[in-house]
Amino acid sequence: MQIFEERGNTDIEGVDSSNACYGGTAALFNCVNWVESSSWDGRYGLVVCTDSAVYAEGPARPTGGAAAIAMLVGPDAPIAFENKLRGSYMSHAYDFYKPNLASEYPVVDGKLSQTCYLMALDSCYKLLCSKYEKLEGKQFSIADADYFVFHSPYNKLVQKSFARLVFNDVMRNASSVDEAGKQKLEPFSSLSGDESYQNRDLEKASQQVAKPLYDAKVQPSTLLPKQVGNMYTASLYAAFISVLHNKHSELSGKRVVMFSYGSGLTATMFSLQLHDGQHPFSLSNIATVMDVAGKLKARHEFPPEKFVEILKLMEHRYGGKDFVTSKDCSLLPPGTHYLTEVDSMYRRFYSKKAGSCTCENGSLANGH
Amino acid sequence: MQIFEERGNTDIEGVDSSNACYGGTAALFNCVNWVESSSWDGRYGLVVCTDSAVYAEGPARPTGGAAAIAMLVGPDAPIAFENKLRGSYMSHAYDFYKPNLASEYPVVDGKLSQTCYLMALDSCYKLLCSKYEKLEGKQFSIADADYFVFHSPYNKLVQKSFARLVFNDVMRNASSVDEAGKQKLEPFSSLSGDESYQNRDLEKASQQVAKPLYDAKVQPSTLLPKQVGNMYTASLYAAFISVLHNKHSELSGKRVVMFSYGSGLTATMFSLQLHDGQHPFSLSNIATVMDVAGKLKARHEFPPEKFVEILKLMEHRYGGKDFVTSKDCSLLPPGTHYLTEVDSMYRRFYSKKAGSCTCENGSLANGH
Repeated sequence: MQIFEERGNTDIEGVDSSNACYGGTAALFNCVNWVESSSWDGRYGLVVCTDSAVYAEGPARPTGGAAAIAMLVGPDAPIAFENKLRGSYMSHAYDFYKPNLASEYPVVDGKLSQTCYLMALDSCYKLLCSKYEKLEGKQFSIADADYFVFHSPYNKLVQKSFARLVFNDVMRNASSVDEAGKQKLEPFSSLSGDESYQNRDLEKASQQVAKPLYDAKVQPSTLLPKQVGNMYTASLYAAFISVLHNKHSELSGKRVVMFSYGSGLTATMFSLQLHDGQHPFSLSNIATVMDVAGKLKARHEFPPEKFVEILKLMEHRYGGKDFVTSKDCSLLPPGTHYLTEVDSMYRRFYSKKAGSCTCENGSLANGH
Repeated sequence: MQIFEERGNTDIEGVDSSNACYGGTAALFNCVNWVESSSWDGRYGLVVCTDSAVYAEGPARPTGGAAAIAMLVGPDAPIAFENKLRGSYMSHAYDFYKPNLASEYPVVDGKLSQTCYLMALDSCYKLLCSKYEKLEGKQFSIADADYFVFHSPYNKLVQKSFARLVFNDVMRNASSVDEAGKQKLEPFSSLSGDESYQNRDLEKASQQVAKPLYDAKVQPSTLLPKQVGNMYTASLYAAFISVLHNKHSELSGKRVVMFSYGSGLTATMFSLQLHDGQHPFSLSNIATVMDVAGKLKARHEFPPEKFVEILKLMEHRYGGKDFVTSKDCSLLPPGTHYLTEVDSMYRRFYSKKAGSCTCENGSLANGH
């Protein structure tokens, strides 16, 4: 909060929303509700989703990643919530959790987590469909949204998830799937819910049927999750940014359905309506300022051994005190805030690398 | 969440709001904003503030306590928010924090924490006054609210806090303090902010001047904090409940100003308007159902040695796994959910003591 304090801005509300990968979504909902409430005072809200997704040595380690995504929230936004079109699912599960307070690494039951994710997806989609149907008096299907963006721990799960929605549409006899596709999936209609989550033939067949729709409605969201790896609470929003980056000139009037999932578990499927918007908050300027391509290009490549070495240092320092960090900040982009010291009282000190983080073409200078 | 799940209610939003003693206030604001937003679907919101305030051996230990307070949030409530009348203050401070992840005990800088609290109080009060003055076109003072309820880690701080508001009113030349009082406090008007937080003579003089107002506007809120000790995030709401308990028959039309403080630090002063309300949500029925007197009477007294012994067990089990809890639940009231086991995977299991927690006069049966 020091950045705000230095500028005399201390009249601030909003605290940490914690719930695994769902925390950022909870904060975003809280912020949007604030803007719509009588306690809103005309200022912008700011939501920051950030996580460092690290795993102990083993098969999950290479899926890790890290990201921070900040969202400015205010009225008349080019990215608007359809707040009545929302389905949530909460349940008590130990699919992925961090019970050992001395370690940053999670305990993961991969198979359970995937089933939990797909069950939550089914539940949320059914609710969203039924709410749409009550509001609009007609059936909702995949055809009614232009993009589907998923919490993306790894791309295979995103493919399975979208195929699951296609299977749902077939079971609901929705118009989004053609007759050939329906015929392919009907043999699986007698499976129980549990069986259907485990059935490999269904998985394969539904992904085949879903393929053309996946390429059109999902693939544009997969760039950052594939390039960066899991980002926990930032993952869904990195996927959404990928759509903005890939399609910003053709998004006006489009509906984007988002699926947020946090282990434990909490999930929501919600809907966004996009509009071109006014400069500086036009979709095209947002895409320019984000500069996804430039940021991806600016990454530094390290050999796996170096990554393992850095994680060893993190393990050692996690929850620690009485250390200073490396003086070498040559790899940090200008304007980066970074940790310099944790003192003997566990107090943390930061510095800021000289320079501005304004993107190269200066379009931020047009902002306000 | 199992209680909701068992009853088929899984379409739920809202996650943990964490910020020291301010967490419950953040959750309450989020919930009230939700009810006012377009995403509200007509259901009640539920806010639970709970903490176990324990300290390492030393002078702070006897100030500890524990509580859980649940609040039902919905439209047309007898306890209503004046959302435009609100001042917040956020600042970066290490006054009280829990940096050692292996321990439940905080690191506390008592003197700094008290100064931070009073500074935040000043800031929030000034903001609330200036917002009121913009809205109403007249000065706000202590005289414009019937009760002042504070986050109450210990009663001495509550006395100092209210005296500080009186000092503020004198400095603002407000009508709430008579001429004799003003004359007593004017000698301190030249103190700098920092000096005024440390000045013992000012503290004493302002508490003397504040005394009659304190007895009328603050004392009714002090019952539970004095009886139970610090309750961290539940503290402010336990103080508010004390007012409901003590004054429920005479609260209609009254304004209550609340001051929430969380170390770190985040603070908000906000205003409530009370109305009798409709059964079952009338103030008098709320007071009956809460049964504060009965709950206080039902407490069990233990010698300090036993308390120390229990804290030793807590220290040992904090963050632990692979243990079962005592089978003896004779001291728990009927209907209590309690921990039975933490297994080798850190998974937690609960049981519920037989019986219902319906209060004796059965008034809950009239609820819906």
